[in-house]
Amino acid sequence: MRADRGLFVVFEGGDGVGKTTQVSRLVDWLAAQGRPVLRTFEPGDTPAGRQIRALVLDPATGDLAPRAEALLYAADKAHHLHALVLPALARGEVVVCDRYVDSMLAYQGAGRVLDEDEVERVARWATGDLRPHLTVLLDLDPAEAVATKIDKDRLEAAGDAFHLSVRSHFLALAARDPEHYLVLPARRPVDELATAIRDRVATLLADLPR
Amino acid sequence: MRADRGLFVVFEGGDGVGKTTQVSRLVDWLAAQGRPVLRTFEPGDTPAGRQIRALVLDPATGDLAPRAEALLYAADKAHHLHALVLPALARGEVVVCDRYVDSMLAYQGAGRVLDEDEVERVARWATGDLRPHLTVLLDLDPAEAVATKIDKDRLEAAGDAFHLSVRSHFLALAARDPEHYLVLPARRPVDELATAIRDRVATLLADLPR
Repeated sequence: MRADRGLFVVFEGGDGVGKTTQVSRLVDWLAAQGRPVLRTFEPGDTPAGRQIRALVLDPATGDLAPRAEALLYAADKAHHLHALVLPALARGEVVVCDRYVDSMLAYQGAGRVLDEDEVERVARWATGDLRPHLTVLLDLDPAEAVATKIDKDRLEAAGDAFHLSVRSHFLALAARDPEHYLVLPARRPVDELATAIRDRVATLLADLPR
Repeated sequence: MRADRGLFVVFEGGDGVGKTTQVSRLVDWLAAQGRPVLRTFEPGDTPAGRQIRALVLDPATGDLAPRAEALLYAADKAHHLHALVLPALARGEVVVCDRYVDSMLAYQGAGRVLDEDEVERVARWATGDLRPHLTVLLDLDPAEAVATKIDKDRLEAAGDAFHLSVRSHFLALAARDPEHYLVLPARRPVDELATAIRDRVATLLADLPR
């Protein structure tokens, strides 16, 4: 299901691929066009979401059950959509979100503890199966990722094979629905990426009522 | 699915029906028999669970999305099972738990916001579909419930129709699987209830290796 008002654009990709920079570039350009924009991120961009994220990442939580972790991330998504994304789309805004369902599926899938179809079912239920109009996937070989701001959290503690698997999960999700994905090699120059993303978003905006 | 070691006994029912008293009576009796017992409760009987429960009930959380609330309760169950219940059952213990999946289904179902089958699917996934060997349902007309220790939380703020609906959901769950339920009128004298529960548990214990 896709929202019938507003435009929902998601950025996906591994750590250190440059999502933040490209989100900023797109949001600045949209603002310059006079488009109302909501810039947001998952997990955690609500007060409840911050608490959920803190709970999952806090080493003091101890050995969290894998299904509990997936359900907590799903709860964060459900609340984020309800509290921020859906209201902004209903107002006709452009929502630019750093990470969404694909990140949950890619990271949980790479973790290989839970059945992937079951995790997807939970994530889709959490989000009422709302899909972005466009997902920008910044693709990069993990070995080349410049991880400048690595949190010492659980995800980051995982090894290379894990990050390779995350990447292939992202690519597989994009391959499932190519019409709604823009897959870009993240090593390309920042300006070049920003232009490619802006051009694709401009096409989608042309169909939106102002 | 039922655990093949240990004995999993759950107490269910509305607020103020006397679950705590009967849990204590059963646990004391089991201990007197020399049975290793884990006394526990949902939601919240782990450090992570306490944080989840606090998050759901804290008025500062604001308007939590209904699916987020259900997913948070499900996360609590997944973690509680993983951290406490399953290890105790694997050790062959008797687990006596105050509230379990039925409470989630009855309260969410009475809330009428979410599809009941969908909520049940999430709850069953969270718990790996582990079912109690016996669920003791203390049944009481809400009008007769003596609510001595009411928290000023969201559940308690709900009205009479809600509590009537909770009750009928509990009864419907028991009717689905009568072999694994003991439904007792909660108004009966405490000693009489304790005896009825103990007799039923004794029958189940007779089949357990010591």
